[in-house]
Amino acid sequence: MPEFFNVLPPDEARSLLFKHIDFPRRTEKLSTVDALGRVTAEPAYSPHALPSFRRSTMDGYAVRAADTYGASETLPAILSVIGEVEMGKASQLAISKYAAAVVHTGGMIPGIADAVVQIEHTQQVDPAHSKAFPFEIEVYKAVAVGQNVLQVGEDVQQGVEILPGGHHLRAQDLGGLLALGITEITVARRPRVAIIATGDEVIEPGANPMPGQIRDINSYTVAGQTRNAGGIPVLFGIIPDDFAVLKAVAETAIQENEMVVMSAGSSVSVRDMTVRVMEQLGVPGVLLHGVATRPGKPTIIGVAAGKPLIGLPGNPVSAMVQYAMFGTPTIYRLQGLLRPPRQGIVWARISANIASESGREDYVPAKLEDSEEGLIAKPVFGKSNLIYTLVNADGLLKVPLNSGGLEAGDWVEVRLF
Amino acid sequence: MPEFFNVLPPDEARSLLFKHIDFPRRTEKLSTVDALGRVTAEPAYSPHALPSFRRSTMDGYAVRAADTYGASETLPAILSVIGEVEMGKASQLAISKYAAAVVHTGGMIPGIADAVVQIEHTQQVDPAHSKAFPFEIEVYKAVAVGQNVLQVGEDVQQGVEILPGGHHLRAQDLGGLLALGITEITVARRPRVAIIATGDEVIEPGANPMPGQIRDINSYTVAGQTRNAGGIPVLFGIIPDDFAVLKAVAETAIQENEMVVMSAGSSVSVRDMTVRVMEQLGVPGVLLHGVATRPGKPTIIGVAAGKPLIGLPGNPVSAMVQYAMFGTPTIYRLQGLLRPPRQGIVWARISANIASESGREDYVPAKLEDSEEGLIAKPVFGKSNLIYTLVNADGLLKVPLNSGGLEAGDWVEVRLF
Repeated sequence: MPEFFNVLPPDEARSLLFKHIDFPRRTEKLSTVDALGRVTAEPAYSPHALPSFRRSTMDGYAVRAADTYGASETLPAILSVIGEVEMGKASQLAISKYAAAVVHTGGMIPGIADAVVQIEHTQQVDPAHSKAFPFEIEVYKAVAVGQNVLQVGEDVQQGVEILPGGHHLRAQDLGGLLALGITEITVARRPRVAIIATGDEVIEPGANPMPGQIRDINSYTVAGQTRNAGGIPVLFGIIPDDFAVLKAVAETAIQENEMVVMSAGSSVSVRDMTVRVMEQLGVPGVLLHGVATRPGKPTIIGVAAGKPLIGLPGNPVSAMVQYAMFGTPTIYRLQGLLRPPRQGIVWARISANIASESGREDYVPAKLEDSEEGLIAKPVFGKSNLIYTLVNADGLLKVPLNSGGLEAGDWVEVRLF
Repeated sequence: MPEFFNVLPPDEARSLLFKHIDFPRRTEKLSTVDALGRVTAEPAYSPHALPSFRRSTMDGYAVRAADTYGASETLPAILSVIGEVEMGKASQLAISKYAAAVVHTGGMIPGIADAVVQIEHTQQVDPAHSKAFPFEIEVYKAVAVGQNVLQVGEDVQQGVEILPGGHHLRAQDLGGLLALGITEITVARRPRVAIIATGDEVIEPGANPMPGQIRDINSYTVAGQTRNAGGIPVLFGIIPDDFAVLKAVAETAIQENEMVVMSAGSSVSVRDMTVRVMEQLGVPGVLLHGVATRPGKPTIIGVAAGKPLIGLPGNPVSAMVQYAMFGTPTIYRLQGLLRPPRQGIVWARISANIASESGREDYVPAKLEDSEEGLIAKPVFGKSNLIYTLVNADGLLKVPLNSGGLEAGDWVEVRLF
């Protein structure tokens, strides 16, 4: 058996890995409308104020607020409506004392008008009179200066930072950029992640296994996780258990991509071979062989040419859990993401006790159910080799390091994946 | 002002819409590896048991458990190791009484062996002796029948439903399918959603607004939300406020797509025109004009040719909130999704009191912050016209119907978007 010469808790293992990653971040310029889900490479600033003109937030009449002071149901103010503000145009209407103009929601406030009276608080003095201008209205409610008016810059002032660098672009962010005419944006390139499967027992999913053989699934689960994190999976297929071949493939992989993942096969000899290949890819090579978690202790973490290397255990559950713990955050980091998206984590109460060994962080697949008291997490127990424990789960429940386990009813963090 | 002739709470409005949607669901066959995020159109069944042969879960020796009974540190069992099981091959080794075979994790259990002794619980009797077979080992710990062995079908039995129809495919689901050799899968087609912007004040994001004009952002925020829900946005651009033109465009849109969204512009006349166009697209036409929510009351819901029509308010925050409430669930439904993904909702405590009118469901943008006691949701107050209230928010906090508001410290549901 190989010694796990350097077993660390996951947080420390991640820090160690991140400390050694060192290569220039790659960026690209995109049309803003195509940048959904991408990560900004630099801050964005507002080129002008938003809105850039005073807009009405109601359907009604643009007025001078002072002309409505004291107006009430019993003693309405009388105003003369001199015209209508056309949508999308600057109005030339001159609102003098006791004058008003029809304005629609989103319409520009004309001249020295400084408030909008809602149409519901008015009535035409002579309803029989046509709506030809001018006509008189009664105003039943006073408005304050600025009421029902969106001021210039009320949404955003000119020259302020509207988005930081390292920000994950959501639909509303694209909207915010486009509202200011920012139609191009520099974002981090999606990191290319080489995925190499090994193991003499592993065959392509389309092949029919002979006794003793299993289909490669880690390449595809890891590819899915890579895609979800914003990376581009580059599959290298199944490489035979041959040191020279594996080394040659890994060398190509690290040259052409920003990260290399090896699904290390299940047997000791293949795991050892993965370690030896990683050691020869460059300095510092292997940083860590073993993480204090279950499932997935025999994970290998390394760096070569400044690029991250991850050796995953062969069993599919361990591989996914370890990749969620190391691969996904690394892909975020390669994109310069300031903080992981919040979508990934929910809190729930667990339905059963879970034991745990001290000195280890455990991840247990769990199914979520709604209840009157919020989400319930039901642990899905099963050997960590069983992919269907994950298929039947909504996420992974975390049993913290040195917690000594969890009790039914405890609130726990569930990572959806 | 148009009457909101039929204002309903959001849940009832959604039910009304869903009841009228009626057209054949479109499906397509995909390579399983390309089906991440898609929705299954039919259940999938296991063509064979998984694993299909007995596998070791440890590195060690395949043995007959009975031969280890009573073994201990002081009185070890002595077994003769007759060979090694090669990875990926069916072993021809005949494990007779007191015989054992080297087996690696994932290796096939040979013949009548029924358990695996971990290598850590053994020692070679004569360490000076080479590892040429046969050699003798001492076993210090008894194993039970089946110990450290994955049985045939322990992951999945043959012929069981492994995934239901209407299931959102995650990375592990692809893994589960591929493990069984299911390399093709029938999924719902991604619904095509026509997005039409209207409003004389609205210009393309790349244009320079004159006073009174604003850039179209709803087309792009709604496109992003559509994409996130699994739909394909089909942008029709900005259509002038002309009934005949808008009607012609809407007719084309509904013929070529599974859903039509009209961002209705801000002015009354445009909203009215949207309603009239929807009424003429087919029966039943407009179902509802007004939803009891804030922001976004003047939302229009309809169905023509069995396909959903949504008329969104012109202001960008209302548009996104209403689309989250009606557009996203409709796209899920068009794909036959059994239940919305859990990723979208987190629970947090609010940091301030929020007032609310009875009879209305309010959505308030909120920023999430981590704290010792879990997530804190800080309401981002602002007029609902301000897109940057959403840019500065992580999600929408829901103030339930008739709750009369919320108090600081209350747990609330926050929809991330």
